[in-house]
Amino acid sequence: MDGIKIATIGGGSSYTPELVEGFIKRYDSCPVRELWLVDIPEGEEKLSIVGGLAQRMVEAAGLPMEVRLTLDRREALAGADFVTTQFRVGQLDARVADERIALMHGLIGQETNGAGGMFKALRTIPVIFDIVRDMKELCPDAWLVNFTNPVGIVTEAVLRYTDWDKIIGLCNCPISMRFGIAKWMNVDPERVRMELSGLNHHFFVTDVFIDGKSCFDEVLDRYCELPVEELGTMKNIMAIPWSNRLIRGLRAIPVSYLNYYFSTREELEQLERDYEAHGVRAEVVKQVEAELFELYKNQDLHVKPKQLEERGGAHYSDAACSVIDSIVNDRGDIQYVDVRNNGAVTNLPAESAIECAAVITADGPKPIAIGELPVAINGSIQTIKAFERMVAEAAVTGNRDLLVAALVTNPLCDSDAVANVVIDELLEAHKAYLPQFFA
Amino acid sequence: MDGIKIATIGGGSSYTPELVEGFIKRYDSCPVRELWLVDIPEGEEKLSIVGGLAQRMVEAAGLPMEVRLTLDRREALAGADFVTTQFRVGQLDARVADERIALMHGLIGQETNGAGGMFKALRTIPVIFDIVRDMKELCPDAWLVNFTNPVGIVTEAVLRYTDWDKIIGLCNCPISMRFGIAKWMNVDPERVRMELSGLNHHFFVTDVFIDGKSCFDEVLDRYCELPVEELGTMKNIMAIPWSNRLIRGLRAIPVSYLNYYFSTREELEQLERDYEAHGVRAEVVKQVEAELFELYKNQDLHVKPKQLEERGGAHYSDAACSVIDSIVNDRGDIQYVDVRNNGAVTNLPAESAIECAAVITADGPKPIAIGELPVAINGSIQTIKAFERMVAEAAVTGNRDLLVAALVTNPLCDSDAVANVVIDELLEAHKAYLPQFFA
Amino acid sequence: MDGIKIATIGGGSSYTPELVEGFIKRYDSCPVRELWLVDIPEGEEKLSIVGGLAQRMVEAAGLPMEVRLTLDRREALAGADFVTTQFRVGQLDARVADERIALMHGLIGQETNGAGGMFKALRTIPVIFDIVRDMKELCPDAWLVNFTNPVGIVTEAVLRYTDWDKIIGLCNCPISMRFGIAKWMNVDPERVRMELSGLNHHFFVTDVFIDGKSCFDEVLDRYCELPVEELGTMKNIMAIPWSNRLIRGLRAIPVSYLNYYFSTREELEQLERDYEAHGVRAEVVKQVEAELFELYKNQDLHVKPKQLEERGGAHYSDAACSVIDSIVNDRGDIQYVDVRNNGAVTNLPAESAIECAAVITADGPKPIAIGELPVAINGSIQTIKAFERMVAEAAVTGNRDLLVAALVTNPLCDSDAVANVVIDELLEAHKAYLPQFFA
Amino acid sequence: MDGIKIATIGGGSSYTPELVEGFIKRYDSCPVRELWLVDIPEGEEKLSIVGGLAQRMVEAAGLPMEVRLTLDRREALAGADFVTTQFRVGQLDARVADERIALMHGLIGQETNGAGGMFKALRTIPVIFDIVRDMKELCPDAWLVNFTNPVGIVTEAVLRYTDWDKIIGLCNCPISMRFGIAKWMNVDPERVRMELSGLNHHFFVTDVFIDGKSCFDEVLDRYCELPVEELGTMKNIMAIPWSNRLIRGLRAIPVSYLNYYFSTREELEQLERDYEAHGVRAEVVKQVEAELFELYKNQDLHVKPKQLEERGGAHYSDAACSVIDSIVNDRGDIQYVDVRNNGAVTNLPAESAIECAAVITADGPKPIAIGELPVAINGSIQTIKAFERMVAEAAVTGNRDLLVAALVTNPLCDSDAVANVVIDELLEAHKAYLPQFFA
Repeated sequence: MDGIKIATIGGGSSYTPELVEGFIKRYDSCPVRELWLVDIPEGEEKLSIVGGLAQRMVEAAGLPMEVRLTLDRREALAGADFVTTQFRVGQLDARVADERIALMHGLIGQETNGAGGMFKALRTIPVIFDIVRDMKELCPDAWLVNFTNPVGIVTEAVLRYTDWDKIIGLCNCPISMRFGIAKWMNVDPERVRMELSGLNHHFFVTDVFIDGKSCFDEVLDRYCELPVEELGTMKNIMAIPWSNRLIRGLRAIPVSYLNYYFSTREELEQLERDYEAHGVRAEVVKQVEAELFELYKNQDLHVKPKQLEERGGAHYSDAACSVIDSIVNDRGDIQYVDVRNNGAVTNLPAESAIECAAVITADGPKPIAIGELPVAINGSIQTIKAFERMVAEAAVTGNRDLLVAALVTNPLCDSDAVANVVIDELLEAHKAYLPQFFA
Repeated sequence: MDGIKIATIGGGSSYTPELVEGFIKRYDSCPVRELWLVDIPEGEEKLSIVGGLAQRMVEAAGLPMEVRLTLDRREALAGADFVTTQFRVGQLDARVADERIALMHGLIGQETNGAGGMFKALRTIPVIFDIVRDMKELCPDAWLVNFTNPVGIVTEAVLRYTDWDKIIGLCNCPISMRFGIAKWMNVDPERVRMELSGLNHHFFVTDVFIDGKSCFDEVLDRYCELPVEELGTMKNIMAIPWSNRLIRGLRAIPVSYLNYYFSTREELEQLERDYEAHGVRAEVVKQVEAELFELYKNQDLHVKPKQLEERGGAHYSDAACSVIDSIVNDRGDIQYVDVRNNGAVTNLPAESAIECAAVITADGPKPIAIGELPVAINGSIQTIKAFERMVAEAAVTGNRDLLVAALVTNPLCDSDAVANVVIDELLEAHKAYLPQFFA
Repeated sequence: MDGIKIATIGGGSSYTPELVEGFIKRYDSCPVRELWLVDIPEGEEKLSIVGGLAQRMVEAAGLPMEVRLTLDRREALAGADFVTTQFRVGQLDARVADERIALMHGLIGQETNGAGGMFKALRTIPVIFDIVRDMKELCPDAWLVNFTNPVGIVTEAVLRYTDWDKIIGLCNCPISMRFGIAKWMNVDPERVRMELSGLNHHFFVTDVFIDGKSCFDEVLDRYCELPVEELGTMKNIMAIPWSNRLIRGLRAIPVSYLNYYFSTREELEQLERDYEAHGVRAEVVKQVEAELFELYKNQDLHVKPKQLEERGGAHYSDAACSVIDSIVNDRGDIQYVDVRNNGAVTNLPAESAIECAAVITADGPKPIAIGELPVAINGSIQTIKAFERMVAEAAVTGNRDLLVAALVTNPLCDSDAVANVVIDELLEAHKAYLPQFFA
Repeated sequence: MDGIKIATIGGGSSYTPELVEGFIKRYDSCPVRELWLVDIPEGEEKLSIVGGLAQRMVEAAGLPMEVRLTLDRREALAGADFVTTQFRVGQLDARVADERIALMHGLIGQETNGAGGMFKALRTIPVIFDIVRDMKELCPDAWLVNFTNPVGIVTEAVLRYTDWDKIIGLCNCPISMRFGIAKWMNVDPERVRMELSGLNHHFFVTDVFIDGKSCFDEVLDRYCELPVEELGTMKNIMAIPWSNRLIRGLRAIPVSYLNYYFSTREELEQLERDYEAHGVRAEVVKQVEAELFELYKNQDLHVKPKQLEERGGAHYSDAACSVIDSIVNDRGDIQYVDVRNNGAVTNLPAESAIECAAVITADGPKPIAIGELPVAINGSIQTIKAFERMVAEAAVTGNRDLLVAALVTNPLCDSDAVANVVIDELLEAHKAYLPQFFA
């Protein structure tokens, strides 16, 4: 093989430098011959800025990796070995609407959960399906590595409603938890492996292996004795530590996004305070992004700037590079991905997406069998999977009733009446991106 | 057979007259030779009042049915054919504590849901297990017909943690829904049958048959066009109609208890208003009960007084008589009961309790197969089943961590921190009835 | 309702008089206004003979039931309420070929099992699919009541490969077992109900209820102590009693067709002896049929002749009338039918056909949940279900490889090499009826 | 770690030199400090011969590995890191009886299948349970690596009827198939990985990966075009090639033991011819073993003699060393083992043993999820799993009825009557080793 071709949809994203850094780091084992950064006309300026940085990074590394910028997606896809997706339909303004409208009605409208996750999915899925159609024609052997949120619903929709099965969803949460657990346990992260049970942004660590040996009881004990400030958490959500009794009752460590579900009251209060102080999260992110792009413009910059790690999605792109490297080299190592369940969790549908530990081979990720979800975490996971499936179906069919049923049965929504109003307002706000609901 | 023997645990309950009326009505086909009303010393006065009425009712009906009052449970159980249970550990004062403590922390503490249901289960299960132990010795062929709430958790606990399988849980909700649907559709209730999917106080009507033919689309349409005031609802909870879109999205009609889950916000606001006005529901019920017992004392009364129907549990006891009659006569008719799933719902455990349509035979209820729960209702049902299983396990083991995990993962609780506090306060309040947690 | 319309495909069958008798008996509760007997041109003479008898039977009964004979299937289907099917593609000569070719190679080629069942299914399924297509157009609300063998595979094929779900498969074996068990236990058959587990011609009685009460231990004991000659069996297969240890080890009573599987050696030897004596079973049946038709011609005959009961399929048609009557009257009684599993047996696919006890309502049969098949009978049932599914798929796709895989994995076939030869010879012999394999 | 301790039960086996060679080869990564060869008094002479060779082999390799010979199992188990088992209760004479008695009645009595496998399991399981009891006391953290046949039933019994879960069953068939497939495809075996579906000695290769990429269609094509003599097969059973249509119909490659099931007729004829010529297989093996031990006695021999590879179980012991090495080093590589299913195959019980591709970690093997077994192979696998479960249960309970049910439902047995006779004779023949049946 004389190097691989990567097409990155949403190439103008502020995350791109991490992706480029990832490919540079791995060049010896996984040589990228061409990296195509694709964006839409509205993103042309950002593409040109971040693309310029990407080119400088490669040049500084002295590698024969060609970085191409284009607005023509089909040109980028033709013959690609891997397609990565990191786009945002309607850009951050759409997210602002999601978060604001939900919050105005007393709901959490987070990017991947509740009403916000629902509408981001509705906007994203039709575009992903377009990409899949193009891939079938232009690069039928390629893998689609998706880190466009909500990764869980997007992966579910592709697995259920297209005949494309070479899709891998990715998230930085498992990696962050691995780092966190390694820190608690005072070991090198490389020595830590986890058993994950559940879904994207809704999983639980149900076992931890250090040097391959299960030591979950010790990890739970350690969690319970550690002072709160050393627990660590994800950057982009408020860190509320779980009570020791919750952790011992679950016998599982929830991903930090579960804060929205298990500390809904406190999260909502915090979002309301934040809103008073500086608007919704998307508005903060817009500001952060603007600053990042200012940095990226600097022609002397030819490495990924440290500030990107503050952005909230650190390790996302690195996870993508790592999966690609393992597929290219048939490494057979264990990584944490969103894939077709295939029976690994027996009480979730075999054809649904799950987030789990999988062996990454040249034939793609092969999930390790977990068996039945423990009862203490099963209810919560089943509810979110039902939500994901309803949203995916509504994204395909344009069924508004299903949106209401999905939101009302989601624990983040506490009112049928409110759900109806919020959905109407969000449909209206995003009309331009939701043709399936306005036919 | 020269008549059957019934033992009613909690015989001093205000519901007893309905039970007696039910047996009188069915005497020809199902002759009760002896009806033993059992209570504990604290309930002796009520037992004597309601027992007196029972005896007058039987006498007025001119039937050779012997009504015996006793504080000796073992005497009542010996040789019984059916044991019905309708007791309340800690009486209504315990329920007052459940509701008040939960509400003080912003949670719904309803008798069968959330924190209230949890603690009623914790108090009830050890007593039910005692009864089961006695039954194995004294009436091993008898059926246990339980309508002590929370019926779902109590049935789950008996099925999972004892080796007694002749238990049937009963509730008046299915019958009420049948009446309601008959009224919407303008037909005699006798002509209506339903497919129920789910759990006690957490089920959905997923099909309706008139004269045996499915007409669910018509029922859903009718629901959507009917004015709210004609929908009808259960007496003891606030009636909030479901939005048409929710009903069409679910393609299922939720039992009214689902109001707590799908209109949590409004229910909580109402409970707070009610509390301001006249205390928690249990306090209202205490008043109603006191009035009922005043009526019962009237030596000229020898029928079930109309006011009992206002009490909130109408049809409960009649449902029990109806099931007993069908077992005695091997009727093979379809009734709605809480029984071992046995595979009728494929994505709930075979050994768990479900509420469903079952054929009632001399060998007990045989559930009709439903297959997989539809995705739109699956999440909610799975969550409550997980809650029930955790509470049942905690009732047996005295594990406090499990209580926290159960409550935090219940959609009625919006805060891990609050759950910890509420559970501590409730454990303390009910210490006398919860030896398993204070060993 | 002013009476129902029945269309009977294969109306010229020798079984028709039983069907007519069944409708006459039930006229009061289930009045048949029109009974259309349909056949193909090759069957015209038999149709006219048996149709004449049918008309004389109805006349003698003095009922306003119109019996119509036709070669135009569409005319018969138009507006029908029930369609019954009892045809035989290629008539008895085709069955002769099935049995002879298999036997020549040392295999059992019985009508519903092994190579014989396979090829009868391959010939029948395309015709059934034609009928279903016509029904969708001409009588979309009708039920298809099929007793054309192999009932299990035909039902499986309709459920899996068409979108028609109003099909009920019927067999006389459950009724015969009910009679047999009643005789062993010295009770009236009306008092006996059974739990059936498995498939058409491959089921096990796993519980027996007398007056509704389970008494399976007594039934098993009785089986073990009864002298062989009182066990009784089906007319058309050799009766080999099961060993007591087998029955106690299975804790189940196999339908007599299981003799082919559990006494393969003896059955094969018997078939070889029979063949020497008087040819294969189909040849004997041809003789019996010829004699029956001679009887039917007698213009003085106006009742079902006793000799029909010797034919081997007694009760088949009566079972059909009984199911039709229960649907028409929404009886809610329990009958034994082949229907969509729908989860009643949790370890068989929900969408597959099973044979089971079902409640017969105006909405069709509703199977009673059984749960997981006991391990001792699970293997055998799974194997035959896999065989049925492969044959059904091959009938639709014309895939010869699948035929080989199906036959080799069937326990009646003991050689891959022989399976290849037998399949080639049978494909050739039935070429005219198997266009799907000769495209 | 200063080296590991291995205890090998049945250390006097002729296979031991392969095991010793395996440990010598892997000494650098997996240093064995002590290798304890344990046997019973009857095996003392063989132990001394093969133990002598083992000591010479280690000495010649110049390694500080201590080889200890003992008749005291507890001494060997104390503090062991791994326990391997390769014993034969009743030695080869018991196997002679299994094979002869079955064959006299027209049945295949092979060591791991049918009546032979059944009785070897009945003799072996009580001894394995004794070992497990000792391990719990003397080396509770050790892994039990079992290659005593029938590996499938033994593993099932330990998983179901003890609380020991650190057991790995091993077989050389997967490795042999890997070599075979590599040869067909003309690639180095190291480049080949397989997906295995099924059970010990009853599995199917359902996918093949070369350099990690699935190429199953090419493998199937290659199978179909290859001349028979290049297919290769296992040494100890007759090689009958599968028909191309069978392979294409199954879309799976059966392990060669399936010959017994798919070519029963030819296998039985061959066994009868062999018997005429030189007795049953066990008698041939006795001769081979005697010759091997003659070789082993040679004091100049200090390597594993080539002749051992002719014995029929080549690679068995090497597979054990390989698994041990991967556990010790947390390699995370994929090997083929018998382990708890844990949901990897969704239509087999989670708690049952399966044979599958698993990732070998320091925490033991983790099976890769396969999902549902394809219908074409499901029936056969379900039948054998049912057989295994019944035999395991009978081994524990001494239930003779269950033996009959198990054998009659096994496709290798074609007669209930014969099964009864064969079981009686085998019980009598092995009375000394089957106390559970003679209590």
